[in-house]
Parts: sequence; structure tokens; C-alpha cells
Amino acid sequence: MEASFTFEIKSQIQRARAGIFHTPHGDLLTPVFAPVGTQATIKAVTPAQLEELTASLVLANTYHLYLRPGDEIIAQLGGLHSFMHWDRPILTDSGGFQVFSLADSRKIDPDGVTFKSHIDGSTHRITPEKSIAIQENLGADIIMAFDECGSPYDIEKNKTALERTCTWAERCVKAKTRSDQALFGIIQGGVYPELRQQSAEFLSRLDLPGYAIGGLSVGETKAETLSILEQVDDWLPRNKPRYLMGVGSPEDLVTGVQRGVDIFDCVLPTRLARHHAAITRTRRINIANARFISEKSPIDESCTCYACRNFSSAYLRHLVLAKEILGATLLTIHNLNTLLVLMKDIRQSILDGKFEQFAAHFIEEWEGTE
Amino acid sequence: MEASFTFEIKSQIQRARAGIFHTPHGDLLTPVFAPVGTQATIKAVTPAQLEELTASLVLANTYHLYLRPGDEIIAQLGGLHSFMHWDRPILTDSGGFQVFSLADSRKIDPDGVTFKSHIDGSTHRITPEKSIAIQENLGADIIMAFDECGSPYDIEKNKTALERTCTWAERCVKAKTRSDQALFGIIQGGVYPELRQQSAEFLSRLDLPGYAIGGLSVGETKAETLSILEQVDDWLPRNKPRYLMGVGSPEDLVTGVQRGVDIFDCVLPTRLARHHAAITRTRRINIANARFISEKSPIDESCTCYACRNFSSAYLRHLVLAKEILGATLLTIHNLNTLLVLMKDIRQSILDGKFEQFAAHFIEEWEGTE
Repeated sequence: MEASFTFEIKSQIQRARAGIFHTPHGDLLTPVFAPVGTQATIKAVTPAQLEELTASLVLANTYHLYLRPGDEIIAQLGGLHSFMHWDRPILTDSGGFQVFSLADSRKIDPDGVTFKSHIDGSTHRITPEKSIAIQENLGADIIMAFDECGSPYDIEKNKTALERTCTWAERCVKAKTRSDQALFGIIQGGVYPELRQQSAEFLSRLDLPGYAIGGLSVGETKAETLSILEQVDDWLPRNKPRYLMGVGSPEDLVTGVQRGVDIFDCVLPTRLARHHAAITRTRRINIANARFISEKSPIDESCTCYACRNFSSAYLRHLVLAKEILGATLLTIHNLNTLLVLMKDIRQSILDGKFEQFAAHFIEEWEGTE
Repeated sequence: MEASFTFEIKSQIQRARAGIFHTPHGDLLTPVFAPVGTQATIKAVTPAQLEELTASLVLANTYHLYLRPGDEIIAQLGGLHSFMHWDRPILTDSGGFQVFSLADSRKIDPDGVTFKSHIDGSTHRITPEKSIAIQENLGADIIMAFDECGSPYDIEKNKTALERTCTWAERCVKAKTRSDQALFGIIQGGVYPELRQQSAEFLSRLDLPGYAIGGLSVGETKAETLSILEQVDDWLPRNKPRYLMGVGSPEDLVTGVQRGVDIFDCVLPTRLARHHAAITRTRRINIANARFISEKSPIDESCTCYACRNFSSAYLRHLVLAKEILGATLLTIHNLNTLLVLMKDIRQSILDGKFEQFAAHFIEEWEGTE
């Protein structure tokens, strides 16, 4: 573990923790939500708008950036922080998940994965060493061990995937050369507690600066997710941040923090924004709905984001029906603000010793999708 | 003419004028370039970004807003300024040009035009009175008389169109009820000096607060455009602003000001931005060009816009190849900045008595399209 990546827990209520994770690009106040910038940009917003939203951590995808524009070009240009003009912490995934979900004709073997680019069909190979080399070129603060994400309900496949993920994590640790990046391991094992435990305990022994929980939100039930989170919480060292990958609806953030998660990322707020959906503290709204045709009030009267301070729901409806880029931009700003403010409020409630009441109140008020 | 819409000429060099046009939403320092916000948004940027660019006047299209979301809805929401959150001056066109260029199956008669919406095929009718009623609902500072734009080389069609445009201008003057809007007449007549003169003299007698020159940049040669501008300059009252519709390449702005034009609008900078093209003070660049693959420098080292201050050409190339919205946003910011700064420099050179040198230098340096 790198000296610069210390994690301090400032307050804990049951499993929920409020902490500070120190990185070379500044402190992350946890729990934290990371907007996703797959191609080195959070879709539809500028870095200046993200700063105004007080976003701290952002995620970028190794698979996409390796293929385009290429990690070596990004390294030549000074790394991802400089390339995308983001001076705060960045996290890159390992490329594994995207290779398995996006690439054409992938073939996995004990040493790595050979696949064809979804962009131009060209053939590529990523091994644990290659994933680390790419992520070192990109230069994020937090990088991920190369892993295989099994389908949740196939125990045999999960066993093989887990074995690989363990071996690959060790190889990633050995391959890593930069001391200004924190390598997180990824716990796999589907819905099987014995596999999850084996994975968590194996990775814990590697004494990494943080641990991700992978292979959730990929088809299993909500109850299974929560049960796994609770168990994993017991198996992982308390003094390291835990990162729940790809999860980020408002209720998932609250229930995740309740089960010990410190870091989240998800495309949900930005993707929904490009599909006419606004997230508020209590529900999801389709802004294209005819009831907004002449609605003067903003999406959410209590929201202080740029979109809600200045624009009516009627204007937003007009923008999305007219397919104007500004519609996506304003909804992205609003949705990110909702999640970022929610995380700040969650953190404050933990510091104030009131998280249980906060969570209970939130869940009571949450109406879900319109 | 409304008392609030006075026009002061601060300096004049040959035909070129530096002035101030007073409007209810603030002073326009002329010559001025208006970015186009067809559907009540300048594509790909927020009003806050436009303010940072120090844009003053923006244009919105009556035809589009009448069809969607509807001018009555915009009126209910407090008018266009409130709807699109733009507190500076706005100009709306009459709807005429778009009816003739975009609508399906239009039928023109002496009283007005019947056409089908390009959005849903529904049938609509716009007369001079209707155009004014729509524009009064929208509530822009500068509104346009309903006109017919003939094809440049058909003298018979131009004669008929001109006759209608004259009659319709008179009907627009009569129909107008709001005193906080300046109604501009539109000079038509194709490439025919005698028709242009007839049009200019007829409209001058109506003593309107400003005059637009329409039916240019629609297929005639550059030499014809410039010749018409010079002649029209002689026929129009000197103490009123002249607006050259739909024109806005850097060289067109310089040569237009040289011939007495005070106001310009054009989709060019914003449209080019969505097609990978950057405009600088000397040329047009395709940012997708392979030579930018690892280019560290911004689009234009001498430019002070948000895009050039913070992002490499390589990053912009990556964004446009990856079809990311941020690519369009950053290029839009850059292109608008180029034109807005050019207009400021033109104005200052007129005030300093150095416009002729400025124009000569600009034209010498201008390399045009890559």
C-alpha cells in the first residue's frame, strides 16, 4: 500500500462510514459518488460545470481509451488529468468488464483475453500486465486489477472466473510500477457467499489500498446484492475504502452506504439525462411528459443546481422534444447535482450521528420511477 | 419608430459605422454578430457560457417556435427572454424564410402562406398579421416584417415577391401593438438593383427603426452580394441600423461592415462546430484531421476562449471522433468567441479611425478553408 493513499474513518454508524481517502489529486470525502466519463468526458458537461457541481472523483474507462485515442497518446499528452482537464481524483477500471460486455468475439484463457474492437473490428489482447500498463499510461489516482466478471447464477463459471481474478490480481500487483496510483482489487463470486468470502479473503491478504465489489447489478436480485454487501463488509479490512462498481440510483447509494460502501460510480444520472429523465430526491421524472407543457416551476423547487435555478420544466420539455443538446446538458447537471448533494447529506448525517434516521426518512420518501 | 430604439453612430470610416442601438434589454454595440438559437437555444451551449463569451444579441426563429412549443406557451411562460433565460436583446425573424425553405407543400397567395409543418405535417397559415402576433407573443426586442424571399435570378418572381413584401410590411406596421419591440423591414429584390432600390425606398418611407437586407447568401455570387450592399447603403437612411440576414463567415463580416452593415446573424459558427470545424482569425480547420492526433497546442494559441485555454487539439479531435457532446460544445464556444472578438476588434478599429488598415490586414491574412 502506498503511503499517500491513507484512509481515515471520521465517523461510523453501524456499517456506514464517513471518511477521507487521500489521493495525489486531493482528498475524497467519502462516501463519494463518481460520475462516469467513459471516453475521458462526462457526457454533455464541461469540466467547469462539473467543478461547479463540486464533483470530486470521476471514472474513465480503460477499454474505451485504450482503443481510442490510445493510452500512449494520452501519456504523451501528460496523462488523463491533463488530457481531460480534470485536476481532481480520477479512477480507471481495468478494462475487463467492457471487454466482456462490449467487445466482439472475445476469447478468454488463463493468461488474458483476446478480443475484437467494437469500433473497427481490429484484434487486441489484454492481460493483467497489459491492463496495468494501460492504466499507468492513463495515470488515474485509483486503478483496478484486471478481473473476470462471471454471470451471477453460474457457480462453475464463477469458480473459474474467481480463480483467474485472484491470480490476475497478484500479477497486477507485481506489474505495477507507479507509486502515485492506488491499485484496488475486485471481489467476484456471483451470488455465492463461499466464493465471495474466498475472493475477499484472498484479496485482503494482498493488503491493497482499497477493494471493489464487482459482479453486482448484473442481473441478481436486490435482496441478493444487499446480502452480499453485508457479508463482504465483514470479510474486508475495516480500514480500507470499499468501492461498489456500477451502482448509483439514489436508493442504491443509501442502502450501499448502510452496508459499508465508501465509493460508487454509475452512468445512471448522465445516461438518464440523455433520455429525458430527471432524478430528484424522491423520484424519477420523465420531463417529456405532456403535463410539463406549460409548467413554470423547475424540475425540483428545492434543488439549487443551474438548471433548477434558471429554467422551467416547460423549457426543459421543449428542449428534449426538439432534441436540443442543452436538454441533455441541463438534465445532466441536475441529475449529477441530485446524487452529489445526496452523498454530501449522507456523509453529514453520519458525522452528526443521524444516519439511521436519514436513511429511514429517505426510504420512506422515495417514490421510485414515475 | 419607438423612442426606446434609438441608434447612435459613434464613428464612421467610409461606409463602416461603430454605433450603439438602444433596446429594452440593453445596448447593442454595433457592428454586432448574433449567434442563432433557432429553437430558443444556441445549440450546444448554456446561456451562462454565452454570457461568458459576452454575446449580446441572439436570434430565434419564429417558424420553429410557432410550431414547437408554440408562441402562446412561450407567452404564458413570460416570453422568450424568460423562457430561454436570456436577459440581453433578442431578435426574431418573421418566419417567412423558414416557411419557404423548410415547410412541406407551401402555397403562397397575396394574403399570406399556407404550409404543412415539417415536424408533423399539420396545416398552418401565416399572414403578416399572424407573424406579428406570433412575434409579439415571443417578445423579442427586434422583430421582422413578414417577407417573401425570391430566388436571386428570377426577375419576374422577384417582382411579385417584392410587391408582396412591400404590402406585407405595411400590414405588419399596422398590426403591431407592442411599443417595446422594434419592427425592421426587409429589403428584397434579388440581384436586380432597380428592385432593390424600389424596396429600400419604399421601406424607408415607412420610417422603421431598422432595415434588414434579405435574399442574400441564397445562391448569388459574392461580387453581386457586395455590389447590392453598396447600393443599398446609399438608398437607406443613415441613422438606422442595417441588418444583413444569415451572413456570418469572418470575411463576410469584414466586407459587410465595409459596406455599412451593423447587425449580422448566422448559423455558421455553431453549425460548423457540430461538424468538426474550428474557425480562427485566419482560417477554417477540420479538427478531425489526423495531424492533430497528438497535438498538444490548442486550436489557436492566441485565442482566450475556454476551449483554447484548457484543451489540446488532440483532445478535441478525440472528442469529435468519439462523437462526444463536449466536442460540439467546445468548438461552439471557440467559434463564437472568434466571431464575437472579431466584431469587437472591428468596432474598436472604427472608433480608432483604423478600420481600413484593419480590414486590409484581415483580408491579407485570411486563408479561408483548409
